[in-house]
Amino acid sequence: MTGLPPLSSTRSERVRQVTALGRRAARDRQGRFLVEGPQAVRELLGYAAGAAEVLYVTPAALDRHADLVEQAVRLGVAVRECTADVLGVMAGTEHPQGLLAVARRVDVPLERALAAVGEQGFVVVLAHVRDPGNAGTVLRAADAFGAAAVVVSAASVDVYNPKVVRSTAGSLFHLPVSVGTPVQEVLQACRARGIRLLAADGSGQTRLPDVDLTGPHAWVMGNEAWGLPPDVLAGCDAAVSVPIRRAESLNLAMAATVCLHASSVATGAV
Amino acid sequence: MTGLPPLSSTRSERVRQVTALGRRAARDRQGRFLVEGPQAVRELLGYAAGAAEVLYVTPAALDRHADLVEQAVRLGVAVRECTADVLGVMAGTEHPQGLLAVARRVDVPLERALAAVGEQGFVVVLAHVRDPGNAGTVLRAADAFGAAAVVVSAASVDVYNPKVVRSTAGSLFHLPVSVGTPVQEVLQACRARGIRLLAADGSGQTRLPDVDLTGPHAWVMGNEAWGLPPDVLAGCDAAVSVPIRRAESLNLAMAATVCLHASSVATGAV
Repeated sequence: MTGLPPLSSTRSERVRQVTALGRRAARDRQGRFLVEGPQAVRELLGYAAGAAEVLYVTPAALDRHADLVEQAVRLGVAVRECTADVLGVMAGTEHPQGLLAVARRVDVPLERALAAVGEQGFVVVLAHVRDPGNAGTVLRAADAFGAAAVVVSAASVDVYNPKVVRSTAGSLFHLPVSVGTPVQEVLQACRARGIRLLAADGSGQTRLPDVDLTGPHAWVMGNEAWGLPPDVLAGCDAAVSVPIRRAESLNLAMAATVCLHASSVATGAV
Repeated sequence: MTGLPPLSSTRSERVRQVTALGRRAARDRQGRFLVEGPQAVRELLGYAAGAAEVLYVTPAALDRHADLVEQAVRLGVAVRECTADVLGVMAGTEHPQGLLAVARRVDVPLERALAAVGEQGFVVVLAHVRDPGNAGTVLRAADAFGAAAVVVSAASVDVYNPKVVRSTAGSLFHLPVSVGTPVQEVLQACRARGIRLLAADGSGQTRLPDVDLTGPHAWVMGNEAWGLPPDVLAGCDAAVSVPIRRAESLNLAMAATVCLHASSVATGAV
């Protein structure tokens, strides 16, 4: 591919630097993250190719995913062959799928995310969500149902955590995502733009079918275990619950899926 | 509690028999399964106490969950103290929570599950679903949104798999669940009762908002990776898709959550 021999030492400085991206501190310091496997790499190249720096590929994957490798080369992404051992160490997963990209962060400033809401859109605000799978699923639902953007507050899970990246199934690259702003500042910025704040809350007094979901609005979703902090709830325009047969039978990802689907239908986003 | 010393040998015949319930073959042979942790045990005692045979409890959990232990005793469930080591071996989880019940199967015959649908209800049919987390979440959604019953076809994941039991968060005990019938027989039994068959299918020609969800109906959900087999799809009255912005952005659990919520709203089930 590049005329260089495949990377084969698991102890080289380069491998060490890539491997370090499995940890949040190194991701924050380097401003980079890992994108693992053919599906995620395909979405990265298709939607955020400018962020892709290097694509590491095993000999087997070079055969199997020749289309992706060719696309990467065409887009000016450096492609580097490496042994399956090296890729396994760098990816830090049990069954790496032979393709691993290093990409620069793709998040956007808060104001740009909120500007995408416009006159008709809706946005998702994750406040103190900690579980990677839940965060990933909510991002995926936001993407599926046509949300304008996702805002992940400070003190939430890192969206560049490999588990989040994997569970978004590419959605991380499909819509503007903003990270790192304290939740109260996010709410304030929404208010300043006339974005109505709807707290998703299992014990909310307003039932989902009774909420007017036309016009710009934000769904504020809290932590999977303890919900939204009282000061966040108090700062929202309504606390909205999904009517269910029994208490506590919806988890965060399920509630988010239902609420975002309702917004999608009401706003004609899809 | 019982006057007997706590079970302390991880190698006793009793411990061996309970531990074996982590495997499907032993569950099928014994007709029993494991219910682990305070949340699941609470739902078992609250909704299906007749199925509970023995509750194993560590000294710490005996203090911490005295209410559950007391309830079990009152309901005639044998309570047996055991060491944390023994409980850990029997539960087969990394972080057991000190409470483990052995229960008899709770599934009902297919005809009883379908009878619960009545004139207005809806039922969920899982056809060849293999992932425990997905099956558990669909059961949870069925419960939350007031489905009359869940039918898990032959060649699907075992609903008594500890991962399924855990991810249903108790829903397994809240509504009638039938297992083990080949999917075509399930479809035939639905037809015989006038239950309309709706296939949940990402490429379905009918869009969810266009489906009439009043009257008795069944949501037929397929395998997470390859969907519904052609003969099952062909046997349904409609193939229904959830409108989304991009293909493949909803997983099985998310699609099921949206479809069952729609049925809940249309039938007034909640």
